[in-house]
Amino acid sequence: MTDKPRKPQKLKARLPRGLADRGPGEIAATRDMVEKIRAAFERYGFEPVETPAIEYTDALGKFLPDQDRPNEGVFSFKDDDEQWLSLRYDLTAPLARYVAENYQHLALPYRSYRYGYVFRNEKPGPGRFRQFMQFDADTVGSASMAADAEMCMLAADTMEALGIKRGDYVVKVNNRKVLDAAMDAAQIKPEKRLTTMRAIDKLDRLGIDGVRMLLGKGRKDESGDFTKGAELNESQIEAIVSTISGKGAAANTDAGGQELAAIDSFVKSAGYQDRVRIDKTVVRGLEYYTGPVFEVDLTFETKDEKGRAVRFGSVGGGGRYDGLVSRFMGQPVPATGFSIGVSRLQAALAALGKLNGKPPAGPVLVTVFGPDSVPAGQALAAKLRNAGIRAELYLGNPKHGLGQQLKYADRRVSPCAVIQGPDEKARGEVIIRDLIAGAAPVDVKERDEYLKKQAEAQVAVQERDLVEEVRKLLVRRGIA
Amino acid sequence: MTDKPRKPQKLKARLPRGLADRGPGEIAATRDMVEKIRAAFERYGFEPVETPAIEYTDALGKFLPDQDRPNEGVFSFKDDDEQWLSLRYDLTAPLARYVAENYQHLALPYRSYRYGYVFRNEKPGPGRFRQFMQFDADTVGSASMAADAEMCMLAADTMEALGIKRGDYVVKVNNRKVLDAAMDAAQIKPEKRLTTMRAIDKLDRLGIDGVRMLLGKGRKDESGDFTKGAELNESQIEAIVSTISGKGAAANTDAGGQELAAIDSFVKSAGYQDRVRIDKTVVRGLEYYTGPVFEVDLTFETKDEKGRAVRFGSVGGGGRYDGLVSRFMGQPVPATGFSIGVSRLQAALAALGKLNGKPPAGPVLVTVFGPDSVPAGQALAAKLRNAGIRAELYLGNPKHGLGQQLKYADRRVSPCAVIQGPDEKARGEVIIRDLIAGAAPVDVKERDEYLKKQAEAQVAVQERDLVEEVRKLLVRRGIA
Repeated sequence: MTDKPRKPQKLKARLPRGLADRGPGEIAATRDMVEKIRAAFERYGFEPVETPAIEYTDALGKFLPDQDRPNEGVFSFKDDDEQWLSLRYDLTAPLARYVAENYQHLALPYRSYRYGYVFRNEKPGPGRFRQFMQFDADTVGSASMAADAEMCMLAADTMEALGIKRGDYVVKVNNRKVLDAAMDAAQIKPEKRLTTMRAIDKLDRLGIDGVRMLLGKGRKDESGDFTKGAELNESQIEAIVSTISGKGAAANTDAGGQELAAIDSFVKSAGYQDRVRIDKTVVRGLEYYTGPVFEVDLTFETKDEKGRAVRFGSVGGGGRYDGLVSRFMGQPVPATGFSIGVSRLQAALAALGKLNGKPPAGPVLVTVFGPDSVPAGQALAAKLRNAGIRAELYLGNPKHGLGQQLKYADRRVSPCAVIQGPDEKARGEVIIRDLIAGAAPVDVKERDEYLKKQAEAQVAVQERDLVEEVRKLLVRRGIA
Repeated sequence: MTDKPRKPQKLKARLPRGLADRGPGEIAATRDMVEKIRAAFERYGFEPVETPAIEYTDALGKFLPDQDRPNEGVFSFKDDDEQWLSLRYDLTAPLARYVAENYQHLALPYRSYRYGYVFRNEKPGPGRFRQFMQFDADTVGSASMAADAEMCMLAADTMEALGIKRGDYVVKVNNRKVLDAAMDAAQIKPEKRLTTMRAIDKLDRLGIDGVRMLLGKGRKDESGDFTKGAELNESQIEAIVSTISGKGAAANTDAGGQELAAIDSFVKSAGYQDRVRIDKTVVRGLEYYTGPVFEVDLTFETKDEKGRAVRFGSVGGGGRYDGLVSRFMGQPVPATGFSIGVSRLQAALAALGKLNGKPPAGPVLVTVFGPDSVPAGQALAAKLRNAGIRAELYLGNPKHGLGQQLKYADRRVSPCAVIQGPDEKARGEVIIRDLIAGAAPVDVKERDEYLKKQAEAQVAVQERDLVEEVRKLLVRRGIA
């Protein structure tokens, strides 16, 4: 046996599944979305507040739907004081903690908004991320259904602010109390209710037959994975199915129905009845909801990369959570809120080609002629920057030829290059090369035209006129 | 013994130490700072990239200074796949992972910026947070000292963009190689070098005598806590002290000195010699630096709340980290970067009264006259909002009197209230009440004037003119 020395294992550069890096285009699009959502939320009078990404585990509570998994979807860890901490899994649980901690100092009803990343320790899948952005608005201290109606109108206005046409989205409203009444009537045991709600929540994805299976013994998906059902009996299943089909007996006489009727009337009086609609199938996964629940769905279809029709479904939701703040307090504190899934909505807008926000235009590139020219180049770049022009010195090996440097400029989408060889330097000149006019032709037949343009694309100017001449070029190119 | 039933323990609403909530003023100020830093960084040609808050623990590596603490300053946890994950403790280690993972697709040198929260599992103290914001720029793939010089100039430009006057800050540059050469010459053992560097890093805070103690046996602080020293011998201590006093023999003949001379010349040629200065005391805490290290310090004094003089010291820093990307690659990848401590700098600017960025003006408040008036109020608020005016319906108990509703408007800093009682409604009118003109007087003698103003502050208009009249008032008040 040979005893070859083993190479030291090289560290692997990889991102954990369900997490993503983001480039200039995506970042600019998110900024644009966030600004539009912010404007819409502020128009409703909400004011900003921000809480940290980390909270005490017990303060967040355990309200995520997948409660039967070992660590329940939350990333948790102990700090030096042996206290359990968790990364926030949404922006509502931390807000409840914030309100309770600062209750005496807040003007009530307290109306606030916030956005940021939340974290879920989930099995990642297509479109399922372990870090994603939410943008929330909440009204704490109001029991009025007018507050819930407002959340629905806010959802509608926000969709339109983001460029989604009226009719291409719908805000659906239901009430947990309607479902609770149906579950009471069907005598469904408390321990089966969460599984029952989770089954209903999948109506959009699985259809009524899929839901039936999940209300019964369970369901095997295409991958062969089996999801255990709620194990309801036949009459219980029928009762639930008839409720979510809107055929149920639970009419507007019960508490939940009355609340829905109130929301409906508020929505109508403000003229939003074409955008907000009562829908008995809406459940929402989070356990803390106690009354009205809302969901905003994109209703149009688009094609995926394989040409198959795709519906995006829910891009936001919320509801009333009258018990969440009271957990910390000796008194009841009603509250309602709405959350936009920014990351999810961004994916939908990207597929629609409706993303806005442009990354900055490329920088002017100051080229170098060997190591000795670097200080002079640095000075030229500084001069441009101090005049407010985006510019950088070529920082690759200063021995690289001009061709290689211009190739780099090309990849940076630089509008022009500044060139100063020894001859130009001796004459006190610099060359400004227009890289947009001088770009390579798409069509080979245009070669003559290209060569002509390339010659024209280069101009020698006095060094003292550099800023002025570059600025002229940028204006011509629509950049400055 | 009485056997009183114990009350169920109420959950406590509290934030873990070292974490903070942020209100409208702070949030607006951070936005303003971030936009100014972004503009400065983009002017240098850096492009945005963003990595997630979570990475594989081994990909981040362990480069924080406090290596002798059990979990070394990093929050770590296992995911469902039993893999160790960590929250990023800075923005450099994740960038190194990103560059290595995407190396083939990047235009080199790769020049990027990013900002976001980073997390440290540290003992929190005054001004020491466990979540804080950094804003970084990095140039990867350039070995040129021009790249390092540029980082220093970027630091200077950024300070001035944020309103810090030239002369009120200084960018200091040193080189790890200078210190390494001194430690070589003094025959300081490898295992003592990190402690030695950490001791030097505290020069600003503890002065030269404090550093001497930390280079020797150790030092007891005011609270009585003892920090173990590097246990160098007398001649070793003297060698280090003379190096950091700039009296050392390590002149510009060694590699580190030559690099510093090159940076100096680049900085001079670009005209930044009044802002960037070589300083042999700069160390920087992070272990991954391999060459030049930079630090930007605020140099002016201010008073704390007890009137004592306070210097803020370092608000940013960086350096060359030629080994960090190469850990993942089969080839050397030189890199250098600079990081602004946004949270720390914001605290400094706040103390100086130099923060900008205003939260939005308060919303117009639409008041209600009992539950039956809520739908009409909702409609008025929607009308204002749809015209782009920030407005909200009073969502407290609709039975609250007008006085209580106006008190709420006062706390929200509302510019005006919209009032429609049954009489106004019958006449098709609304009352617009100017809450700025009608604000309570500072001086009791101004009471007559106040009452007169208050009467004038209220005007009845036709309901159809609501938007127009409110807009006029907002223009008059400088809000719209």
